Amino acid sequence: MPLRCPVEEQRFVLEHVVGIHELTNDVDIVDALLEGAAQYAEGEVEPLNRIGDTVGAKWSPEGVAMPQGFHEAYRQFVEGGWGTISAPEEAGGQGLPLSLGAAVMEDLNAANLAFALCPMLTMGAIEAIGAHGSESQKRDYLPRIVSGEWPATMNLTEPQAGSDVGALRTKAVPNGDGSWVITGSKIYITYGEHDLADNIIHLVLARTPDAPAGTRGISLFLVPKVLPDGSCNDLRCASIEHKLGIHASPTCTMAFGDGGGATGWLIGPEHGGMRAMFTMMNNARLNVGLQGVGIAEAATQRAVAYALGRVQSARAGGVSKDAVAIEQHPDVRRMLLRMKALTMGARALAYYAFGQIDRGHRGDKAAAMRGDVLTPLVKAWGTDVGCEVASIGIQVHGGMGFVEETGAAQHLRDARIAPIYEGTNGIQAADLVGRKLGLDGGLAFDGLIADIRAEIEAPALVALADAVEMVATTLRAADHDDRLAGSYPFLTMCSVLTAGWLLERQARAASGDSPFHQTKRAAAGFFIAVVVPEALGLAAGAEAGAELLYSVDAEALA
Amino acid sequence: MPLRCPVEEQRFVLEHVVGIHELTNDVDIVDALLEGAAQYAEGEVEPLNRIGDTVGAKWSPEGVAMPQGFHEAYRQFVEGGWGTISAPEEAGGQGLPLSLGAAVMEDLNAANLAFALCPMLTMGAIEAIGAHGSESQKRDYLPRIVSGEWPATMNLTEPQAGSDVGALRTKAVPNGDGSWVITGSKIYITYGEHDLADNIIHLVLARTPDAPAGTRGISLFLVPKVLPDGSCNDLRCASIEHKLGIHASPTCTMAFGDGGGATGWLIGPEHGGMRAMFTMMNNARLNVGLQGVGIAEAATQRAVAYALGRVQSARAGGVSKDAVAIEQHPDVRRMLLRMKALTMGARALAYYAFGQIDRGHRGDKAAAMRGDVLTPLVKAWGTDVGCEVASIGIQVHGGMGFVEETGAAQHLRDARIAPIYEGTNGIQAADLVGRKLGLDGGLAFDGLIADIRAEIEAPALVALADAVEMVATTLRAADHDDRLAGSYPFLTMCSVLTAGWLLERQARAASGDSPFHQTKRAAAGFFIAVVVPEALGLAAGAEAGAELLYSVDAEALA
Repeated sequence: MPLRCPVEEQRFVLEHVVGIHELTNDVDIVDALLEGAAQYAEGEVEPLNRIGDTVGAKWSPEGVAMPQGFHEAYRQFVEGGWGTISAPEEAGGQGLPLSLGAAVMEDLNAANLAFALCPMLTMGAIEAIGAHGSESQKRDYLPRIVSGEWPATMNLTEPQAGSDVGALRTKAVPNGDGSWVITGSKIYITYGEHDLADNIIHLVLARTPDAPAGTRGISLFLVPKVLPDGSCNDLRCASIEHKLGIHASPTCTMAFGDGGGATGWLIGPEHGGMRAMFTMMNNARLNVGLQGVGIAEAATQRAVAYALGRVQSARAGGVSKDAVAIEQHPDVRRMLLRMKALTMGARALAYYAFGQIDRGHRGDKAAAMRGDVLTPLVKAWGTDVGCEVASIGIQVHGGMGFVEETGAAQHLRDARIAPIYEGTNGIQAADLVGRKLGLDGGLAFDGLIADIRAEIEAPALVALADAVEMVATTLRAADHDDRLAGSYPFLTMCSVLTAGWLLERQARAASGDSPFHQTKRAAAGFFIAVVVPEALGLAAGAEAGAELLYSVDAEALA
Repeated sequence: MPLRCPVEEQRFVLEHVVGIHELTNDVDIVDALLEGAAQYAEGEVEPLNRIGDTVGAKWSPEGVAMPQGFHEAYRQFVEGGWGTISAPEEAGGQGLPLSLGAAVMEDLNAANLAFALCPMLTMGAIEAIGAHGSESQKRDYLPRIVSGEWPATMNLTEPQAGSDVGALRTKAVPNGDGSWVITGSKIYITYGEHDLADNIIHLVLARTPDAPAGTRGISLFLVPKVLPDGSCNDLRCASIEHKLGIHASPTCTMAFGDGGGATGWLIGPEHGGMRAMFTMMNNARLNVGLQGVGIAEAATQRAVAYALGRVQSARAGGVSKDAVAIEQHPDVRRMLLRMKALTMGARALAYYAFGQIDRGHRGDKAAAMRGDVLTPLVKAWGTDVGCEVASIGIQVHGGMGFVEETGAAQHLRDARIAPIYEGTNGIQAADLVGRKLGLDGGLAFDGLIADIRAEIEAPALVALADAVEMVATTLRAADHDDRLAGSYPFLTMCSVLTAGWLLERQARAASGDSPFHQTKRAAAGFFIAVVVPEALGLAAGAEAGAELLYSVDAEALA
């Protein structure tokens, strides 16, 4: 099924949700980029999605070979400048809003999640080097990373240090000449090794001698695969994982310094690794939320196309006994409209968050903080939506959904990583109740809810806003355990409220008779009538507290 | 991770939910069977689960080769008489309650869903031949099908006839000697061909000459792979599907009569195929619900074991800064308890339904009808629970959950077929609101709710019972479209209410200090505090009607 990137929808969201005209003077570029990205994603990247899945990345002692076609598609990515949209102009970027770059990334995610991960990781590194790198790093590395000539990676995780980054053991020892000797092993390194580019720039978290324990003692290093003198650095990909999905994205175990030590350079101050990591990570978290949006879009299109073509059974209660396309059956319609409503909701939430960060970059501190509040929502709920919509997509296909050739199953397999990486969704929920709920003395969160309240009209949305405030009050007064026990359902409630607000606003603006406007109103209507009340049903769990959870030993649960 | 079948839990549910002592005089046999089945499932069947997934069934023009170990495990299945428990004594069965056989099937499902499908399909055939077969069919085939020596299949689906069985085209023409010539092609035939047994008994739906159109014109035929004279019948497996999961279960395209015609014999009267099919299917639907339970049990055990062993991060707000096993973190506990609560809830609902059918077989007509009401609930909600719990299980594992070697991902891949086959969950929801809500003038459904109301105590359960009755009233008065539009959320509400009722009852009975009793109370408590209010949140969707669904053309949703 050929993907059709939702250009009209993206433009509409950028206008009515992001206010893109307030972020760039050049409105023509918006259309040009959306259409160009759609053409590239549909024509070059999506056709590789299935071969990427069936063949996958292949490891050998010499390195990792990408599937046929990926090299050419990546060459076109670099040539087209698709990685440069939101990158700083001084590094060769176009300096355009992140929210516009987000639309492009969504298209790549929809087309081929495994392929899109390479530029996605690179974007995090651009942010980190741009914010914390030295002048020479910005001069020598940033332009080639921005162009995509040298893609970049994030080397955080070690076997004993997953969510607990502070437990990492990779070592960095000064060479005396400004460089450092890096030794250690990293796991789950996305695109840690591949043959799409001549060089790969690894951003590696490591511990310097006598560094304090935990997160306060870690530092970030730039460790290129090929050193400035053209020689190979002492690093290699020891193996890649055999995974449920995103088979074309090599998930590498990286060995640094097997031959004595890899050479790296500090990014930012010593022991400043966590701050630099969060610069990378926050960008990556929003982008992972966009993965959910992209997968949801692709899965929805595939399901709708199937439902339009698959003829089965007469309409119940109809006069005709002729079989109809299954899209006409009410429960299939329910599934399709649910997919559409969730996809549109997740997109609105994600673009809105990127827009807030864009405003923050332009000096609006309140918007920057709102972006911080929204980041865990976009990451966790966006990826939950990706999985739910992909799973419904399988269901719409019936037996064909379980047959791999159809492509519906791949969407679910690919989507299922997104709630896990870049901070599990449980970590996002903890971030929401632990940090974001109290940000700026609580004003950042409360300001968001106040803005929502000032605009929402549907009684269901008002009821959900009431419930969100009630739960927020409870959780703020609660101890750590009770707060964390309710964090996940609370995050979902906040996400649905924010998405519902933005969908209702769009429905008001979509007052015309075009199929697009009709769809917008139908999707918003479904979201408010069905999805919002479901979120209200989560309030009890959000306030249930932790006592019950600890009333039994975990051993007894097995 | 070695599976430990939940014998204590199964015994408890059989006692407090099923009332097994009212269904059999021989209570000792219950313990013996539960323990024996656990030993067989854990020792012989579960160890083949991973090889079944990685190697899978292999097709060649000569037939389908099963993975190493499956032949020996199946031989032990036959020798151990594991297929005979609930089969009629006159056919060599043990004549024990279906609810007891259900516990055994749950164990096999938990151990290896792909393996368990072979006996599961056979059970449907035993019911159909037992109810509708001729005396000679019962004499010549049933004992060997019951023993497992000759496993059986259900041949319903054709490319144009999935959910709409009446659209099938396979033909049956009388030979004049009581046999029929069968020609046609069937798809999605589970265990349609394999090398576990010398013969396979296909039950095939076909259309006789001049039969009326639609479901009223189809008949059921017994079509053995090997004919009574020892010659091969004219049927073959043309290919098998490449699927998301249950790789060791061959999903066959079957060609009947390529060489002129396969030989078959009518089961029951001509044009009586639908009735015979529903005999097979109703049994199979409950058994598919049990697949959800089995997968949920296995996924929960695997996640708990991982969470107990995986040490990561200190407890938030705790005095110690030492990392703890992740089961100690509140949100991980929430996931584990949710898995446990959903698994226990789905098990209680499924066993209860089997128990009602057992009572029906013993002459209790009200119980038989209640079993009919419960069948779509068990099938749809049980399989939804299987998928949800398997997905949470991946999440508990973090990055390891996405790596296939861990085994968590396989549970989701395997579980995902269950909402589709034996009537999609949407078909189940349509069955609930279209047939079961009005069964016996509505008394069958209303009697269930009345019994629930008479026993439930928790206000959340009472509120859900109120909502279920309110929605039932709405849907009974609604037209086809509105009724079907609300069918799926209504089914979930009914399922959660019934499961919550049975869990609350068990929690009252589990008043001791044992870890098992504590777990029962904690799981029931979580279910009522968290899952029941979520179901209440579905009421708005159940009553939303179809208008919104049809306010836009499906084309516009792509």
